[in-house]
Amino acid sequence: MQKRYIMAPGPTAAAPEVLLKMAEPIMHHRSPQFSEILTEVREDLKWLFKTQNDVFILASSGTGAMEASVVNLLSPGDSAIVVRAGKFGERWAELCETNGIKPINIDITWGEAVRVEDIEKAINDHPEAKAVFIQAHETSTGVKHPIKEIGELLKDKNICFVVDAISAIGVYDIETDKWGLDIVVSGSQKAFGLPPGLSMLSVSQKAWSFIEESKCPKYYFNLLKEKKALNKKTTAFTSAVSLIIGLGEVLKDWKKQGHEKLFKHHKILAEATRAGITAMGLEIFSKVPSESITVVKAPEGINGQDVVKILREEFGITIAGGQAQLKGKIFRISHMGHLDQWDMIVALAAVERALKKLGHDVEFGKSIAAAQAYFAAHEE
Amino acid sequence: MQKRYIMAPGPTAAAPEVLLKMAEPIMHHRSPQFSEILTEVREDLKWLFKTQNDVFILASSGTGAMEASVVNLLSPGDSAIVVRAGKFGERWAELCETNGIKPINIDITWGEAVRVEDIEKAINDHPEAKAVFIQAHETSTGVKHPIKEIGELLKDKNICFVVDAISAIGVYDIETDKWGLDIVVSGSQKAFGLPPGLSMLSVSQKAWSFIEESKCPKYYFNLLKEKKALNKKTTAFTSAVSLIIGLGEVLKDWKKQGHEKLFKHHKILAEATRAGITAMGLEIFSKVPSESITVVKAPEGINGQDVVKILREEFGITIAGGQAQLKGKIFRISHMGHLDQWDMIVALAAVERALKKLGHDVEFGKSIAAAQAYFAAHEE
Repeated sequence: MQKRYIMAPGPTAAAPEVLLKMAEPIMHHRSPQFSEILTEVREDLKWLFKTQNDVFILASSGTGAMEASVVNLLSPGDSAIVVRAGKFGERWAELCETNGIKPINIDITWGEAVRVEDIEKAINDHPEAKAVFIQAHETSTGVKHPIKEIGELLKDKNICFVVDAISAIGVYDIETDKWGLDIVVSGSQKAFGLPPGLSMLSVSQKAWSFIEESKCPKYYFNLLKEKKALNKKTTAFTSAVSLIIGLGEVLKDWKKQGHEKLFKHHKILAEATRAGITAMGLEIFSKVPSESITVVKAPEGINGQDVVKILREEFGITIAGGQAQLKGKIFRISHMGHLDQWDMIVALAAVERALKKLGHDVEFGKSIAAAQAYFAAHEE
Repeated sequence: MQKRYIMAPGPTAAAPEVLLKMAEPIMHHRSPQFSEILTEVREDLKWLFKTQNDVFILASSGTGAMEASVVNLLSPGDSAIVVRAGKFGERWAELCETNGIKPINIDITWGEAVRVEDIEKAINDHPEAKAVFIQAHETSTGVKHPIKEIGELLKDKNICFVVDAISAIGVYDIETDKWGLDIVVSGSQKAFGLPPGLSMLSVSQKAWSFIEESKCPKYYFNLLKEKKALNKKTTAFTSAVSLIIGLGEVLKDWKKQGHEKLFKHHKILAEATRAGITAMGLEIFSKVPSESITVVKAPEGINGQDVVKILREEFGITIAGGQAQLKGKIFRISHMGHLDQWDMIVALAAVERALKKLGHDVEFGKSIAAAQAYFAAHEE
């Protein structure tokens, strides 16, 4: 029974209290008791998303809700602007292509954020584009895009703004209504610290007007069906009852804390970790780093995958390496899920030890001292 | 803390041991430890499905895997034969229509089974049909279709045979390979007694040759992507790790029992319940009743929904009513999930009491006596 730490950017660590709540006897998905829970969870999601829009819950991973956004909003032959700044940006483009939609790609060097001007230019060059697809936080690079500013640009235009906030919602502020976000996508296995299998998405009035015109075929991911079901306080297909019950527990806890405390928590974990990493003489990969994860450049001569491997195999700690073109070049430490300051100390200590093992020049405790100083100055 | 009984045809009762296993700390979906579990679960599913075909696991409810079957096998403009003998047969037809496939519907009176001759006639009348879609067990009516016989008819023809076995797999014998079933669909929330959110499907060599030609757009449900991932011992998108771990626990237990004991268990529960229902003077609705559920005709003058309501509100017991055209006319008791003989005694006793409350002439204990006699003669 080795103690296990999960500090990967999803799935993330779950609170034992939540896991045990999910282990309670199974409830029927059409029972009045479950309907009540579901309705409350949807209300709490609206609070979290800062929206008056309906929030839908699907039994799928986050990619399912991404595909739902594409196939419900658009029709074959349509064009859409896609910000490709990492693996998940590429996924938007693939989802468009698969479904007969022409992606107009804005390609950004991995590790950098898109600029509002890039979007402005794209919509001017392509007035035919019906939607803009982006990540709030690109999990593969740890970069935050300027969602608020892009939202303000698009708000009054006849174009839908679709934000994959899978690794942003619950971590930092996403103001769905104020920023004019038409669809915001989320998933259970990131900030919520729940097992994977649940995705959520909010849908604006503007989005509904697109949805009514959409001609992409869809059944399991049909949002008009889900809307009908929502009005009857249920889901179109069998609800993933235990995951939704877990989600309800997390949201209750978050509501008690309030938005500010929740976002501050992630900020503190991220800043302290970055202070530690920098004190270790390492570099942060992300140009606009998020509060969701810390992405560290592997030092010269060290393969990032080896750091990940030592942590996993020798220390019982799961962090993540780089994906695709970043494989070997970075490693990623999550601040999402049921984690606290002591977990970040553990992560830093483990990275110190792994790098030493790999022959890198490390002074033990230096990164910890920097993190400690930050934590001490920002007690939650 | 009212004691809760769930005897609906899904979600079904879960074993506390399995729920607690699922409550263990979350595992990363790309870790070697999870890969190993996933690979073992897939092997055990092949054992259960009686197949050498690969079995895929999707993070979706059963409907997701049904849609995956349609959009991976066929192309817009294709025709397919659909057996519509209840709500889930209708779902196959809707899935086809949604995706641009012409359903050739064989409409069967609800409560009856399709005959092999009906299929034979349909394929002769429609040589253009590329697939036959059916339920092994139609959950809305409690009826079993003659899958083995239809399989033998279609086996050597260039037509795919797709069986929704969501409420059949694990309950009674489904011989995927011997009967020539090209796709067999299953779901976590029926016989497995797991929370909803997971679907599984096996895919034959014949099916792959269709899949390679298919032109329906799909991303989240793309089986070619899943096949690539399977070869790397993972899933294309984030695996629903906790549900898969739960599935592994159930399958280990089932393998220890063996097929025969597992199927006998459900048969005994079903036969004893039906003996009890008949002794109560009530009628079984299904012409070819399954071992999955018992569907009871509401007696003259009694609304089936009232029986369901009394059980739920007064006794803490969830059974199911009728759907669509059967609403009010029937009620359904499950034999799937973590249930034993004593649960069936409870169900019968509760039905006796509910009917009495509704003014029906019931002799207390009579149904129990009949069930007891059956159980005593068939001890497991």
